[in-house]
Amino acid sequence: MSYIEGNYDVAVIGAGHAGCEAALAAARLGLETVIFSVSLDSIAMMPCNPSIGGTSKGHLVREIDALGGEMGKNIDKTYLQSRMLNTGKGPAVHSLRAQADKFTYSKEMKIILENTSHLTIKQSEVTDIIAEDGKITGVKTISGAVFNSKTVIIASGTYLKARCIYGEVSINSGPNGLLAANHLTDSLRNLGIEMYRFKTGTPSRIDKSTVDFNKMDEQKGDERIVPFSFMNTEEEIKRDQISCWLTYTNADTHSIIKKNLDRSPLYSGVIEGTGPRYCPSIEDKVVRFQDKERHQVFLEPEGEYTNEMYVQGMSSSLPEDVQRDMLRTLPGLEKCVIMRPGYAIEYDCINPLQLNSTLEFKNISGLYSAGQFNGSSGYEEAAAQGLIAGINASMKILGKEQIVLDRSDAYIGVLIDDLVTKGTNEPYRMMTSRAEYRLLLRQDNADIRLSSIGHKVGLISDERHNSVIEKDKKIDEEINRLKNTTVGANKEVNDFLEKYDSSTLRSGSTLAELLRRPELNYDVLGEIDKSRPQLEPDVIEQVNISLKYEGYISRQQKQVTQFKKLEKKYLPDDLNYEDIKGLRIEAMQKLNSVKPRSIGQASRISGVSPADISVLLVYLEQLRRNYNS
Amino acid sequence: MSYIEGNYDVAVIGAGHAGCEAALAAARLGLETVIFSVSLDSIAMMPCNPSIGGTSKGHLVREIDALGGEMGKNIDKTYLQSRMLNTGKGPAVHSLRAQADKFTYSKEMKIILENTSHLTIKQSEVTDIIAEDGKITGVKTISGAVFNSKTVIIASGTYLKARCIYGEVSINSGPNGLLAANHLTDSLRNLGIEMYRFKTGTPSRIDKSTVDFNKMDEQKGDERIVPFSFMNTEEEIKRDQISCWLTYTNADTHSIIKKNLDRSPLYSGVIEGTGPRYCPSIEDKVVRFQDKERHQVFLEPEGEYTNEMYVQGMSSSLPEDVQRDMLRTLPGLEKCVIMRPGYAIEYDCINPLQLNSTLEFKNISGLYSAGQFNGSSGYEEAAAQGLIAGINASMKILGKEQIVLDRSDAYIGVLIDDLVTKGTNEPYRMMTSRAEYRLLLRQDNADIRLSSIGHKVGLISDERHNSVIEKDKKIDEEINRLKNTTVGANKEVNDFLEKYDSSTLRSGSTLAELLRRPELNYDVLGEIDKSRPQLEPDVIEQVNISLKYEGYISRQQKQVTQFKKLEKKYLPDDLNYEDIKGLRIEAMQKLNSVKPRSIGQASRISGVSPADISVLLVYLEQLRRNYNS
Ligand SMILES: Cc1cc2nc3c(=O)[nH]c(=O)nc-3n(C[C@H](O)[C@H](O)[C@H](O)COP(=O)(O)OP(=O)(O)OC[C@H]3O[C@@H](n4cnc5c(N)ncnc54)[C@H](O)[C@@H]3O)c2cc1C
Ligand SMILES: Cc1cc2nc3c(=O)[nH]c(=O)nc-3n(C[C@H](O)[C@H](O)[C@H](O)COP(=O)(O)OP(=O)(O)OC[C@H]3O[C@@H](n4cnc5c(N)ncnc54)[C@H](O)[C@@H]3O)c2cc1C
Repeated sequence: MSYIEGNYDVAVIGAGHAGCEAALAAARLGLETVIFSVSLDSIAMMPCNPSIGGTSKGHLVREIDALGGEMGKNIDKTYLQSRMLNTGKGPAVHSLRAQADKFTYSKEMKIILENTSHLTIKQSEVTDIIAEDGKITGVKTISGAVFNSKTVIIASGTYLKARCIYGEVSINSGPNGLLAANHLTDSLRNLGIEMYRFKTGTPSRIDKSTVDFNKMDEQKGDERIVPFSFMNTEEEIKRDQISCWLTYTNADTHSIIKKNLDRSPLYSGVIEGTGPRYCPSIEDKVVRFQDKERHQVFLEPEGEYTNEMYVQGMSSSLPEDVQRDMLRTLPGLEKCVIMRPGYAIEYDCINPLQLNSTLEFKNISGLYSAGQFNGSSGYEEAAAQGLIAGINASMKILGKEQIVLDRSDAYIGVLIDDLVTKGTNEPYRMMTSRAEYRLLLRQDNADIRLSSIGHKVGLISDERHNSVIEKDKKIDEEINRLKNTTVGANKEVNDFLEKYDSSTLRSGSTLAELLRRPELNYDVLGEIDKSRPQLEPDVIEQVNISLKYEGYISRQQKQVTQFKKLEKKYLPDDLNYEDIKGLRIEAMQKLNSVKPRSIGQASRISGVSPADISVLLVYLEQLRRNYNS
Repeated sequence: MSYIEGNYDVAVIGAGHAGCEAALAAARLGLETVIFSVSLDSIAMMPCNPSIGGTSKGHLVREIDALGGEMGKNIDKTYLQSRMLNTGKGPAVHSLRAQADKFTYSKEMKIILENTSHLTIKQSEVTDIIAEDGKITGVKTISGAVFNSKTVIIASGTYLKARCIYGEVSINSGPNGLLAANHLTDSLRNLGIEMYRFKTGTPSRIDKSTVDFNKMDEQKGDERIVPFSFMNTEEEIKRDQISCWLTYTNADTHSIIKKNLDRSPLYSGVIEGTGPRYCPSIEDKVVRFQDKERHQVFLEPEGEYTNEMYVQGMSSSLPEDVQRDMLRTLPGLEKCVIMRPGYAIEYDCINPLQLNSTLEFKNISGLYSAGQFNGSSGYEEAAAQGLIAGINASMKILGKEQIVLDRSDAYIGVLIDDLVTKGTNEPYRMMTSRAEYRLLLRQDNADIRLSSIGHKVGLISDERHNSVIEKDKKIDEEINRLKNTTVGANKEVNDFLEKYDSSTLRSGSTLAELLRRPELNYDVLGEIDKSRPQLEPDVIEQVNISLKYEGYISRQQKQVTQFKKLEKKYLPDDLNYEDIKGLRIEAMQKLNSVKPRSIGQASRISGVSPADISVLLVYLEQLRRNYNS
């Protein structure tokens, strides 16, 4: 039995972090949108760590916010503790991270979804993607309901044919005891989509009342709260913060783990999926880093009103008794009681090389995908892709240009480019080291970098956009003022410099030059800068960073100009690389499979050499000439 | 692999309404208790209607509260609307009912559990009950962890080998997409326990924003809020209430249902379990009550901050398209969108005739059970049994007398006696008509009836108990005062009576006599009762009811005295009824299977006739004589 349930513009499969952003973006752009979840009780659920942001992930969240996404706003509503990480290092790697109340995060996101126009929410398992002649027409659910839809976004996360495993226990279910989605994989295979099987894992949750915090180091939140969303101020979201706690593994922990490796489903071969190298289980860490004497372990609250605590660093699929024994070797956890054991989860996802940079499938027009389904891991990575997929599915329907952020625009660009160009053979996660231009792609300037794109697309209001333009103008003006304001080598100035252990002046200097000195900054310069205007802290921050790192920044900007040239040398979609003489066979095959949109993208495909790129450039030039004549 | 995880006094399988009360009672009595749930996200979950209480169920909740249980307190914290039902009828059937915020109800109960000493909370599926020589020794979980335990309470609800069905969809899962518990049934069968297969069902949840409330009747909450818990006052829990909405089915609805009966898994034979006669699905109602032109349908909020609404009265396992079509025939629901479809659920439970009145299994010492697992349905029925099982498992360990509430003590007594004496072949629910002495078992006097039992057991503090004794004393004193205060046939009194259309006095009368007149009550009598003391509203309520219904009450009290006589004629546990000459064969078999604790209980077993009871009485008398000589 099947029947038509309705007609939609966008159908989103999944209401995790990816699906929520995708559906919100489409509905807010006025497109009739339907979102499906296996359970409506798990909307924007966090099956693993109770936190948003962190190194490089914090960047993603601020970029999502600058483009008009929801994650930043939602964590600002529901955080328990906030910290700016890496403040000891340069501003490129400053990253915001907040502990979340999982329960409330999920509840608040559901409220947002429910109160968004043009958005229909359905608890139902999607079993089939329906396409005709390589073009999407809709989806079908387990009850036979067909939702006709111009576009479909798959954001099925870790649910497809999911299996949860620890020790000898193996349960066919999605994360956290939720139902798996067991039908969709077959439908995808029938559409010719290549599937991967990945795995990831989570540690146990323990009972706070059984922990001795005296033996651990307290990790408090920052005094000054930086909101994730550029729309919020510190005052609006300030709250009493809740602490996390640091402890360490030791020789006893490692010996228990080693002794029980034969009981690990990872090592016994029960687990087939490929796990994330950068989020390893504790047994992985102990095996791979034999000479490391200890590993950090953080105890983090799962919510404000629960005793459940997340044991970050101790992800494991060892048997429950081994999980207990190893935890009890940690200072402070000697008597801890496990409330939920850790486990590994295996699931079906895709080889992301099948996607365009817009996150549309190359071979199926109107089919988009995002999140863990694309081979990534992480809430923020998922949300970022979800937002882009939601925007692009909408742009396609509206007949507008789809957006592709490149590697110099945003971490989101790096993330998607990595996935669709290099592919991945393990759950991919964002890292600052993956970004070439990270001095430009700072978390603090995401609004300046991306608001105009969010505005063009329609997710950022005129008002918000204008205020960013205004901010940008103020920054420029102030930089110019500082560059053009000279102070003399007089007593007042030199006294000031001496006070800050800075070498005194013999002749005049601009304020900008002084600001670049490591021991000085915009704030202290106020003492000798009498005519400065009253500026907002976020403007000052940009002025400060722009001037201090001006040299590095302008060097990266030049690199970006070079980079952009190649990114703009577009390659036709229908190019058959077998027709191009001079390409090596491997390159030919890789190029044919990835179908890069530009010379730039082609150059990042593994197996495509600089010589191949030269051949391509020549070929492109010929094409152009033929076209012109 | 199996290993010892710990030693406990009480192990509770299940954290639904039954399991929570059981575990809280045991832990509060100081016993080391462990509670298991398949998912820690579904503690005290309400898989069906978002309300607590209602006719006869409201009585159960107040009794639970009077005995020291949690349900009343928790709903007082989390209600959205409160109503005293049946106020047009006598006080026996007044029943409190509150709409609940499901989400918060569950969250708050989890917080209570987590903050109770002596209570360990575990997310794990119990697979085995371990018994040796007919005596409980513990349980084993899916990960091989053995929890040694002196007693075990099974409160597995609707999870055992659960299957959810609607239309052609059939999913092996527990309610609401949660994992089923698929192993425990086998372990129970191996212990010789007789299993039943029951089913129940739930309606769809629809999106509030798609409802036209103008076409429905608003159901507001009461002005005056009566808390469920005797520990709360109106002022403490008062809040802005949220409305429900009334609409009706019609001929169109019924015709759609009839036309699609062949697609119903109920009628096609896919569903094997036995459903509740008193909570029928809409298709059941339409088939069974052919001449009924319409059925009431209430729209109730699932929570304060969600758009999901529960459609009470439309429980169904018809295919999703039929559910949609039939809903859309209802005034106000013409455009409604289903967020979660309704479904039926089948599950394994027991024949409750295997239990003693203490809720302990007859054949397995230390094994108790409660809730839906015992063949009942309903949150309140579950909680009531859970509390008794928790208390009795504790009493057993503490070497104290276990409690059995009889049919004259409490609705809880009626409930348990019905289950263990009459058994049930469909999910059993409480109804006022099942209680013989319902004028005594009022919701308003549950504290007076039961606090002393709660106190004796240890769940009611001295302070709380003393305040009930104090209240009781005040009631008695005031009743006596009214009975002994005479007013003369003077002008003031007769003017007063005329004002209330009451016949005037010719000679003196006691205030008690006047109060019995239907047109008068304690409050208005104040006008001529100058010397009355200042009394609390709950004392006044008791005085009023006691005097107004004195005749009926004392008649029921006499019946209770008779009844108690037979209840106190205890039958030995080890009686072999085959040895008793004169019993009919059917009676002999039934008696041998039920093993009634008293002549009273024996007399309620179906198939045991008054003649059989006479035989038993004679036999008992002989036993007594033999014993004495
Ligand atoms: C056990 C575990 C451990 C993890 N550990 C880490 C970690 O250490 N580090 C890290 O960065 N990330 C980790 N993750 C990953 C992180 O949870 C995900 O990356 C993130 O939640 C992915 O978001 P998503 O939106 O892609 O998918 P999900 O959050 O998984 O959401 C998927 C959604 O799709 C729905 N769905 C799926 N199939 C269907 C269907 N057929 N029909 C209808 N609805 C469907 C689901 O109901 C759900 O709403 C872990 C995840 C799990 C489960
Ligand atoms: C779809 C549906 C419709 C219903 N409709 C109605 C209705 O119309 N009217 C009505 O009065 N009642 C209805 N009910 C019944 C009502 O929900 C139950 O009566 C009540 O919730 C029973 O409470 P309980 O504590 O007995 O069990 P539940 O609330 O079912 O809780 C059972 C608990 O046991 C746990 N558990 C089970 N097995 C194991 C195991 N092996 N190991 C560990 N944990 C385990 C579960 O995780 C859960 O925590 C309905 C129930 C469902 C599911």
